Amino acid sequence: MDRRTLLQFLAMTPALSVLTSQMAKAHDGIDRNAPKPKVGMLIHPEMVLLDHVPAHTAFALTMSDITLVWKSREPVSTDIGISLMPEADFESCPRDLDVLFVPGGLGGTIKCIEDPAVVDFIADRGARAKWVTSVCTGSLLLGAAGLLRGYRATGHWHSKHLLSHFDAVVTNDRVVSDRNRVTGGGVTAGLDFGLAIASKLRGENWAKSIQLILEYDPQPPFAAGNAQHAGRAVVDLVDPLLTPQLKRAQQAVEHVLRKHI
Amino acid sequence: MDRRTLLQFLAMTPALSVLTSQMAKAHDGIDRNAPKPKVGMLIHPEMVLLDHVPAHTAFALTMSDITLVWKSREPVSTDIGISLMPEADFESCPRDLDVLFVPGGLGGTIKCIEDPAVVDFIADRGARAKWVTSVCTGSLLLGAAGLLRGYRATGHWHSKHLLSHFDAVVTNDRVVSDRNRVTGGGVTAGLDFGLAIASKLRGENWAKSIQLILEYDPQPPFAAGNAQHAGRAVVDLVDPLLTPQLKRAQQAVEHVLRKHI
Repeated sequence: MDRRTLLQFLAMTPALSVLTSQMAKAHDGIDRNAPKPKVGMLIHPEMVLLDHVPAHTAFALTMSDITLVWKSREPVSTDIGISLMPEADFESCPRDLDVLFVPGGLGGTIKCIEDPAVVDFIADRGARAKWVTSVCTGSLLLGAAGLLRGYRATGHWHSKHLLSHFDAVVTNDRVVSDRNRVTGGGVTAGLDFGLAIASKLRGENWAKSIQLILEYDPQPPFAAGNAQHAGRAVVDLVDPLLTPQLKRAQQAVEHVLRKHI
Repeated sequence: MDRRTLLQFLAMTPALSVLTSQMAKAHDGIDRNAPKPKVGMLIHPEMVLLDHVPAHTAFALTMSDITLVWKSREPVSTDIGISLMPEADFESCPRDLDVLFVPGGLGGTIKCIEDPAVVDFIADRGARAKWVTSVCTGSLLLGAAGLLRGYRATGHWHSKHLLSHFDAVVTNDRVVSDRNRVTGGGVTAGLDFGLAIASKLRGENWAKSIQLILEYDPQPPFAAGNAQHAGRAVVDLVDPLLTPQLKRAQQAVEHVLRKHI
């Protein structure tokens, strides 16, 4: 990879910027010179890219100033083999964020929970952020950082019961808002989360505009998106696939709790 | 970026591989030694990453052999500033694909339609692929390559009427299957598309397992995902934002048609 290619790779010239600037003009009451919402999105190896992209798209379409952050500036791999480039490390990430966002992917979440540098970073930025948010198993990391104590929260259906170890009140809604904590269910809940947070940042009409641009009028071909409706046969296929990692997560949670006693 | 970092960036070690291998074991009748479905996913500058990732995730979870392909091997930017690395160019892409997939993003689609090298590549691989597929405005490129003549098809709500110029029968379903053509609506229809194609490749139970793993049980906070339900105020906000690019697309389509007469 030569220098030109590298620079090209690092260039941040999203095609969305034209659209978002038009959106600001179209929406009454938006001062385009006012500071943009500062969004810090944690990225981590083994994260699920589909947890991240809908939220990222919604933040981009709310004209936010987005920073992808990880403990080092090296490329971060994801579940489907696409790598992300961190734009800041834990030192250089803005200290005062409007939104802190944490994605899931249980393998990566476990490693984050076990890493004091990550937990401390999340606790620090989370203590000051206006909105503390996650999708999927990301809420377990918020919990490990002590940010969900006494809050209603959700996460991926298969592991969210572990949130109770961190004194969160586990809830079954797809997106759960409790004061300034906003957590989403597993993976694809990032779409519903994205519209919910867009509405908080820019108002309902702006969020609805995003929904129409993204044509989010879901029509799943099956009704297998939750364990109640998927049917015993499908649950019996999926449960054993996810259980080994759930056991690892249980151990990680217990380990973290023992350290804090 | 040193050599080690670069290699790390290029490494394809998706966390999903363990899961998919377990899925193959769990599903009866899957011969794990049989060839995996060969999937060629076109990527292009200005593509919408959210068109791509749900489909990519579904293909990964069907244990497919996925190749990201573009005319050069340089990084490809996307709407939200995340770049993708092509894994093949038009020469090195496998000639016989089980699935050809084309994403949207109207700006990028227009440039593809105007580029004979891209149109010829899509026409060539599409002529032999078992399944010819797209999400969002990607169907316009399939149309420009002559692959939708006489087929029912769909695309992003704001521009899909242009498909009729390519003799496609424009259809309002979220995912449209006609013989071996499978096209999805705008952006987020990629989730519904992903499950539909997974079902064709691996059967309904496997597709349902994917839906449960991804917790795809959508609950949008608003009903603004299509122009009929979004309400006049929201449509009046969005329509002028999308119209300049629609006019460019109209010109591109007319230009292509004139060349072929």
